[in-house]
Amino acid sequence: MLTPNLSYANLKESYLFYHIAQKTGAYLEEHPGTHLYRMGIGDVSLPLASAVIAALHAAVDDQGTKESFHGYMPECGAPFLRETIAEYYKKRGMNLSPDEVFVSSGASDELGDILDLFDRSNTALIMEPAYPAYVDANIMAGRTIRHLPSGPYNHFLPLPDESIDADLIYLCSPNNPTGAAYNREQLGQWVAWANERGAVILFDAAYEAFIEEDLPHSIFEIPGAQTCAIEICSLSKTAGFTGTRLGYTVIPKALERSGLSLNAMWVRNRTTKTNGISYILQRGGAAVFTEEGQRQIHENIRIYKENAKVLMAALDEAGIRYWGGKNAPYIWIQCPGGMDSWAFFDRLLNEIQVVGTPGEGFGACGEGFFRFSTFGDPADTREAAARLLKLLK
Amino acid sequence: MLTPNLSYANLKESYLFYHIAQKTGAYLEEHPGTHLYRMGIGDVSLPLASAVIAALHAAVDDQGTKESFHGYMPECGAPFLRETIAEYYKKRGMNLSPDEVFVSSGASDELGDILDLFDRSNTALIMEPAYPAYVDANIMAGRTIRHLPSGPYNHFLPLPDESIDADLIYLCSPNNPTGAAYNREQLGQWVAWANERGAVILFDAAYEAFIEEDLPHSIFEIPGAQTCAIEICSLSKTAGFTGTRLGYTVIPKALERSGLSLNAMWVRNRTTKTNGISYILQRGGAAVFTEEGQRQIHENIRIYKENAKVLMAALDEAGIRYWGGKNAPYIWIQCPGGMDSWAFFDRLLNEIQVVGTPGEGFGACGEGFFRFSTFGDPADTREAAARLLKLLK
Repeated sequence: MLTPNLSYANLKESYLFYHIAQKTGAYLEEHPGTHLYRMGIGDVSLPLASAVIAALHAAVDDQGTKESFHGYMPECGAPFLRETIAEYYKKRGMNLSPDEVFVSSGASDELGDILDLFDRSNTALIMEPAYPAYVDANIMAGRTIRHLPSGPYNHFLPLPDESIDADLIYLCSPNNPTGAAYNREQLGQWVAWANERGAVILFDAAYEAFIEEDLPHSIFEIPGAQTCAIEICSLSKTAGFTGTRLGYTVIPKALERSGLSLNAMWVRNRTTKTNGISYILQRGGAAVFTEEGQRQIHENIRIYKENAKVLMAALDEAGIRYWGGKNAPYIWIQCPGGMDSWAFFDRLLNEIQVVGTPGEGFGACGEGFFRFSTFGDPADTREAAARLLKLLK
Repeated sequence: MLTPNLSYANLKESYLFYHIAQKTGAYLEEHPGTHLYRMGIGDVSLPLASAVIAALHAAVDDQGTKESFHGYMPECGAPFLRETIAEYYKKRGMNLSPDEVFVSSGASDELGDILDLFDRSNTALIMEPAYPAYVDANIMAGRTIRHLPSGPYNHFLPLPDESIDADLIYLCSPNNPTGAAYNREQLGQWVAWANERGAVILFDAAYEAFIEEDLPHSIFEIPGAQTCAIEICSLSKTAGFTGTRLGYTVIPKALERSGLSLNAMWVRNRTTKTNGISYILQRGGAAVFTEEGQRQIHENIRIYKENAKVLMAALDEAGIRYWGGKNAPYIWIQCPGGMDSWAFFDRLLNEIQVVGTPGEGFGACGEGFFRFSTFGDPADTREAAARLLKLLK
């Protein structure tokens, strides 16, 4: 008799964003034709850069003739893309070999898959509030989870101390959902902590392209990170690949535990459990890193940053306290009047048709807070800001 | 201190096809410029169908303008593709609901990921010789593996009996690597066996499009399969998507164990651990199932079947015993003169520059056998057949 993975019974009934999609779907069924101002899931609204579109078309053409057709790709990524990404790190002062870079289907897939490298007995420490998949993927694996709470008292940037122990730690900076970003000295404390204990840092750098201030874009800017960190990145937010799917993961060759190279283990995992990432998508991804591609994606990021400014101005005027919005595409607000976050969600949806994300969905210490994404359509964002101001002032 | 997943230490050093790629790479380094006749990994050689290319181009265009841009896709698959695939089953007499169909990145990814649904205490029974990822993915999970050997004595189609017990069983029909295919009565025996014991069948139907005779294309043609089977399919071989990546998985709603719906668990898994499959690729995949797409892919399959005939004629003339080649894109030969399969691999590579796959790589009972893929270039296949005949006659 087959026994299913009973750890699934320990999960909440549905995943946060799926639950929000169902709630907004139900609202639209009751109010057909209503326009919603979506600042919830963090999906982008601008199309792919024209350099990426051109590269995708060229790659589709390659797949249409026998001479240029590509079958199975190397499982860890096409050499052209692994080299391009290693070069992207090099330009920013980090020396990585292309075979320390793995191409992925995106950060969300990778955050789940990478856990296969670790024994289930390891304790996972999760900086919270957090992207809920960190917690759920570890519950599915039956792993013990410790929560590392944050709040206004530590500027949503918890730091290690002697009392904190774990084998695996999730750090996301710039942070989803709070928008807070660690500086070099703070990340240095985490790297020292991990190296002392033999812990491994899973560093989610999905929002690095939104950093404006002099803050680290990668954990590998910190000396010592090569022996304790894995970095997981995505083109979803950087280049609007949410529906196109592509990401990359860096596992340094210097990262070993119990005498096993995690880089070699991941090669074994990928060569066994995948047949590589679509040739077409990898060509599109490579175009992001060209001079033209970089110029175009930064123009899109500038538009999203204008959205952030519009929202922040409304929040300032309404006297609402918030974090983020500067080095990250998220604005994290304190719910007005001590309202709980799902009640605030319902109020915004029902009264002004604005969709955000309740802080409680990111962990218990997110209760009383609320996340706005700045990836919306600029006209929608201006209207949502005006509606928010009218409602909250 | 983090403990890595020590089950990786129980794996062979490298994955079969990765090992073959390294061996052929080394040969080419010693003999630069040599043309190899590749009938090894089973990669296709014909380009994508023009209906697919047109759909991919249109989808890329959609991603280039704000009005038609697609961000995050539904995690279990785009409704248009889930409906198209359910319709494909319906045309063949099987009633599935679109939400029993999940879109995947391909069968190899899915065969690894799906194991997350099952407790590690389950025993996996693997029909052998077998696609090596079945074994390796279960070794990585620390699961107990039982081998169900096959050979000429049972026509490479093992059947259940009272002595056979397991919680999870892998069946692949038409089979990789042997090309053998079960008939309805035989699959019915497995379905009855699984339902009696509460076991779950993982049915790999990657080669269904190659069936010529009146044999089941899907486990769901067998009454009772809805309560004991998951079917994993791929467009890799059906439509040449090896380097494009797309597949699908069927999990019936009637499939429950310990009171948990495996369909609902997979929804929870996908909504947590992925952000869906590329919009572009799903549009390309949908084109495979149009009338034009079906006509074009069957024309490609016809060309591969011509390859099979050319190879079989040479083997007949050389007096080599073989299986498959008819309902499957693989020909499984008995190594001549009792040669072991890696020695035969080296001989073919060194003497006639033909690359095949040693049977031993598919499990111990594959020793003494050798697999040829029929997906090669037709001119290459003719030359390889002539070289084989000259060497072996």
